Amino acid sequence: MTRSGQRVIMGIDPGTQIMGYGVILIDGKKVHFVDLGIIDLRKEKDHFEKLRRIFIEVGELYDQYKPDDLAIEAPFYGKNPQVMLKLGRAQGAAIAAALQRNIPIFEYAPRKVKMAITGKGAASKEQVKEILERTMDVKLDIKYLDASDAIAIAMCHFYQLTNPMTDKKASTNWKSFVAAHSERIVK
Amino acid sequence: MTRSGQRVIMGIDPGTQIMGYGVILIDGKKVHFVDLGIIDLRKEKDHFEKLRRIFIEVGELYDQYKPDDLAIEAPFYGKNPQVMLKLGRAQGAAIAAALQRNIPIFEYAPRKVKMAITGKGAASKEQVKEILERTMDVKLDIKYLDASDAIAIAMCHFYQLTNPMTDKKASTNWKSFVAAHSERIVK
Repeated sequence: MTRSGQRVIMGIDPGTQIMGYGVILIDGKKVHFVDLGIIDLRKEKDHFEKLRRIFIEVGELYDQYKPDDLAIEAPFYGKNPQVMLKLGRAQGAAIAAALQRNIPIFEYAPRKVKMAITGKGAASKEQVKEILERTMDVKLDIKYLDASDAIAIAMCHFYQLTNPMTDKKASTNWKSFVAAHSERIVK
Repeated sequence: MTRSGQRVIMGIDPGTQIMGYGVILIDGKKVHFVDLGIIDLRKEKDHFEKLRRIFIEVGELYDQYKPDDLAIEAPFYGKNPQVMLKLGRAQGAAIAAALQRNIPIFEYAPRKVKMAITGKGAASKEQVKEILERTMDVKLDIKYLDASDAIAIAMCHFYQLTNPMTDKKASTNWKSFVAAHSERIVK
């Protein structure tokens, strides 16, 4: 937390085709939406040129928003090993740019992110977006759901900081979750 | 190639437990052994601390040896997706440190490296080491074969620069390979 009681959290959803990012500002217990966007890598054919762009352009985003914390998506399961290695390299480049700037990094499993935002580990990207919009009282005008995913990761980190809970607790204690987070329930 | 006709090639064999590195100097058509070693990450428990050490320490090696080219091991097959993602992140951190210094990066499949050094895609690490020792006329005093693997990757890049060949050509044209690379045949 900065001296003013404010904290900037950046979430990134690093892929090898599109890298989404989202920035939120925590002011006391309030969350404000700051920005979201994507780095579009689909036209980049050379693998190392992709990694170079991630390292440079994500680095520029860190310099622009000066996040206190970086939150990223943790390893997930069930993918092709080759895809995972390339995804790992993309994440490694984005992580290295944060390490270079001494930004603390936190990772959250996709299921944990969905659980933290919606109370359901299997929520759709659209459901996640809708609840984020209600929580921050903004309309997220986005072409790519990768960017709202990045906001969700940042928000998950905020919830973790203010009210740590494990996946297990969350899933077995639905009633207390609802009571604590009424704004996050799809009505 | 530098103005003096010399070229420094660094090979790295990036793992999440031990990262091997090897440096060779090309002087015209001659290859000289410069250094090899490892970065031991086995005692590092925190994943991001591992990545931080790779980014910083591999970066220091680049600054020390100022390689003209970096050669790394390309994606390989048949591993667990989780292992591959973590390996990818480790590689991504080492690659980012090279991108930061504008060092060109080249990657070679493990089979291609073994083929280039020994003429056999399925050669053992010991066979690779033995041929490297003969080629460079040095005794590689190493505890870890990861480091001699890194030298092999650097050497593979040197062969690729001087005499490009595909895996296919190499494997179907054994006689011409033998004729061209008699020093690399295990007698």
